[in-house]
Amino acid sequence: MKLSAREIAAHLNGEVEGNPDVTASGFARIEQGTQGTLCFLANPKYEEYLYKTGADIVIANKTFKLRQPVACTIVWVDDAYRGIATLLDVYATLNVVQKTGREFPSRVAWSAKVGKKCYIGAFAYIAKGAKVGNNVKIFPRVYIGNNATVGDNCILYPGATVYSGCHVGRSCILHAGAVVGSDGFGFAPDENKKYKKIPQIGNVIIEDDVELGANTCIDRATMGSTIIRSGVKLDNMVHIAHNVEIGKNTVMAALTGIAGSSKVGEGCMFGGQSGIIGHLTVGNNVSLTARAGVSSNIKDGETHMGFPNMPISSYRRSHVVFKSLPDLQKKVLQLERELSELKNK
Amino acid sequence: MKLSAREIAAHLNGEVEGNPDVTASGFARIEQGTQGTLCFLANPKYEEYLYKTGADIVIANKTFKLRQPVACTIVWVDDAYRGIATLLDVYATLNVVQKTGREFPSRVAWSAKVGKKCYIGAFAYIAKGAKVGNNVKIFPRVYIGNNATVGDNCILYPGATVYSGCHVGRSCILHAGAVVGSDGFGFAPDENKKYKKIPQIGNVIIEDDVELGANTCIDRATMGSTIIRSGVKLDNMVHIAHNVEIGKNTVMAALTGIAGSSKVGEGCMFGGQSGIIGHLTVGNNVSLTARAGVSSNIKDGETHMGFPNMPISSYRRSHVVFKSLPDLQKKVLQLERELSELKNK
Amino acid sequence: MKLSAREIAAHLNGEVEGNPDVTASGFARIEQGTQGTLCFLANPKYEEYLYKTGADIVIANKTFKLRQPVACTIVWVDDAYRGIATLLDVYATLNVVQKTGREFPSRVAWSAKVGKKCYIGAFAYIAKGAKVGNNVKIFPRVYIGNNATVGDNCILYPGATVYSGCHVGRSCILHAGAVVGSDGFGFAPDENKKYKKIPQIGNVIIEDDVELGANTCIDRATMGSTIIRSGVKLDNMVHIAHNVEIGKNTVMAALTGIAGSSKVGEGCMFGGQSGIIGHLTVGNNVSLTARAGVSSNIKDGETHMGFPNMPISSYRRSHVVFKSLPDLQKKVLQLERELSELKNK
Repeated sequence: MKLSAREIAAHLNGEVEGNPDVTASGFARIEQGTQGTLCFLANPKYEEYLYKTGADIVIANKTFKLRQPVACTIVWVDDAYRGIATLLDVYATLNVVQKTGREFPSRVAWSAKVGKKCYIGAFAYIAKGAKVGNNVKIFPRVYIGNNATVGDNCILYPGATVYSGCHVGRSCILHAGAVVGSDGFGFAPDENKKYKKIPQIGNVIIEDDVELGANTCIDRATMGSTIIRSGVKLDNMVHIAHNVEIGKNTVMAALTGIAGSSKVGEGCMFGGQSGIIGHLTVGNNVSLTARAGVSSNIKDGETHMGFPNMPISSYRRSHVVFKSLPDLQKKVLQLERELSELKNK
Repeated sequence: MKLSAREIAAHLNGEVEGNPDVTASGFARIEQGTQGTLCFLANPKYEEYLYKTGADIVIANKTFKLRQPVACTIVWVDDAYRGIATLLDVYATLNVVQKTGREFPSRVAWSAKVGKKCYIGAFAYIAKGAKVGNNVKIFPRVYIGNNATVGDNCILYPGATVYSGCHVGRSCILHAGAVVGSDGFGFAPDENKKYKKIPQIGNVIIEDDVELGANTCIDRATMGSTIIRSGVKLDNMVHIAHNVEIGKNTVMAALTGIAGSSKVGEGCMFGGQSGIIGHLTVGNNVSLTARAGVSSNIKDGETHMGFPNMPISSYRRSHVVFKSLPDLQKKVLQLERELSELKNK
Repeated sequence: MKLSAREIAAHLNGEVEGNPDVTASGFARIEQGTQGTLCFLANPKYEEYLYKTGADIVIANKTFKLRQPVACTIVWVDDAYRGIATLLDVYATLNVVQKTGREFPSRVAWSAKVGKKCYIGAFAYIAKGAKVGNNVKIFPRVYIGNNATVGDNCILYPGATVYSGCHVGRSCILHAGAVVGSDGFGFAPDENKKYKKIPQIGNVIIEDDVELGANTCIDRATMGSTIIRSGVKLDNMVHIAHNVEIGKNTVMAALTGIAGSSKVGEGCMFGGQSGIIGHLTVGNNVSLTARAGVSSNIKDGETHMGFPNMPISSYRRSHVVFKSLPDLQKKVLQLERELSELKNK
């Protein structure tokens, strides 16, 4: 792929500032850009690199104001991040090895159905009654259990596991070690305080366009289904407990955990290591900062922080005082002394 | 399975309210119950659904008081959660495919011993000197290392790994990706601050009736054994470091981490994302809230919260004030002003 | 291996107190030491066991002062922990089974290159163009992707995955389920708030002497490389996001997460469940306590705690007051009352 600034601008509906005929054949981060490469600038933190990058072309947000002359050609666009995504996509499509066919040894049960143009890697296992759609890439060491289904255009990376009876929609990506359908964590203590396992006879339903990070785990429901709606993106090592429902286009960063039976709305964004305790309802478009721990329901559109969770502005105001608590305490002691003196006068 | 309310009541030692002859053939969550299904109500949060569920039979705790008429038949029991567990168990036993036999390719060393009625899935690996008991289900892609042992009636789901020399007791369940016996995290810095690995020559001993969630990791001891006592249940992605000992019937929710050489008592319940630093002793029947971070020993029966950990009631009282710290600060400043005015009068 | 106290002292440049001719043939923890075993004492918490251990030889730090007579022979050394590491190393070298050769079925692409004296376990997969050095141990179920490289003397335990195009240096250890090169978590929302994947076309570069714990995940860069410098040690289930760089000899305990594009210096020590948000810079020799959550840059040599992070001494002073906040609040209310009375007199 070799594109000129003019072609890129046409592709992204942008405007060229500088030489429109300069070309780029690769991508780089703006701080590492070299001749022949294309970079992007979306985060103001990186503005300084715009003036010293060695890249030939930089895609930048129209909202930026140049404060110095630049050596590179700039393509101004509405959303540089989305623009680069579009170009990367073109690049990725052109460069990905489009593997198809079956490697051996691998195991596909007689009663399993596999669609057209699929890749099945060595040591993959597709159990009885499982159904795999068209154009699916099943890397080595993937396990798809009895009667599980995987929709068209999915990619299952090495070691991903889909337990029996679980459903993965179309165009989903499961990274290495992701687990779909392990038993929910349900036990009932007997009279001797020994825990008896509650059989988990439900399943997991994952809709379309969902991405699960490496080693992320989604437990099957006790009864009914744990549901991950379309467009959800979960980072590495996220834990979704039994009977949880995650709404459309919600994203969660790594090491986040959602406890049993909680319901999370659409369009939410959760920071890393955040968590939600069980049996709660979190509305649509809710944001959690990193490490927020939610112990009460949250309404649509709010942003929360801390544990137990508080609205972010409240938390921050309290935390400012927390930082100077020893001073506050000293003041109170001083006041006590002064007041006592005054009274005894 | 098709059971009448009368039969269920007999089975669970309960009392029928409504038509004792109505039958159910499946399970559902109370909010999703439809004709022919059986639900349970144990958590008061879900009481509203009791009045509008479409289920034919609901198993409920005797302690509930009906506040409206209901359409379904109720079976009143002492403990609805345990009751449903009993019924689910019957159901699970009737429905589980009782796989046995060996699939190929799989690898079992000549010197390994495998008991009767086992299932060994394709791509499973049982190394030299390993011993597997009777009626064990070893799913595809499981690895059992040299001289490791796995007791009767265990289930090892796809991708579970037992390192060499580790022992898993009877009736244990290891979910997909669980790791038993990875090296403890032990290093000694040399004069150049480079870390030298301390060989981890101990092992892991897991007693009976233990369940390990998906991708949970238990490190082997530096010397001696990391010990998981019988009846322990660990959720997904729990980390147990080297030389830890976890007492009988202790349960830990997802993403919890126990650092090296700490000892946890029996009957403890730890919330998700909680943790314990190294070389501590936590007593029996200790509860930790979600995200509690323990940095000091805890006595039997206490419940702790926060980091550094505090008794839950203390933490909560402090947190209430934390939420209004800006107000407290204002009051102190106001007091300072007023006192100063008073003194200067 | 059977060594006398005299030989051990010679080996570790230590001094014998007691019978120099007593021998030990195995290692034990000091609280579990029995006849014929060798223990060490580095942590003062375990001093009591020195007086009652059944071990024949104890290696102890010169800085300890005996407060009671002991039955065992002591070898006084500068650093008992390092000393035992040296001896364990000797022991490990003598006892490790030095596996080599290839087990079947395993899959090595024609265009892949594998060095001398390697072990390739059954069900391992080495893809096209991959290069594996000499003396590498590739356990069963390991996956090495297209054009990935693994240096000399590495050990990849069962189920470790190296995605295409990633590089692992020499003498690295990847524990079971570790993932190198899964996609970075990068998405751009479209006009309908649906997320579009940003192709992650970078890779991961791991230098020499790095150890990755079980189920630890390192994401590939969007562009360029996620970099793990030599000597880095990561515990179980650590998350390293795209475009992060971790400096030499930095160690991180379990369940820690480093968000995208952050840069961590050399010689840092991070406690368990700690974390760093994206796009930050953390200096050299920085320490984080367990659960520290870093949301601002940190300078060389500092130790931080809490979230948002504070210098440890500040955090501790504030936390002391936090613990007694209800008292502080009472005092303020009392002051308000008294002042009001005084003014109204």
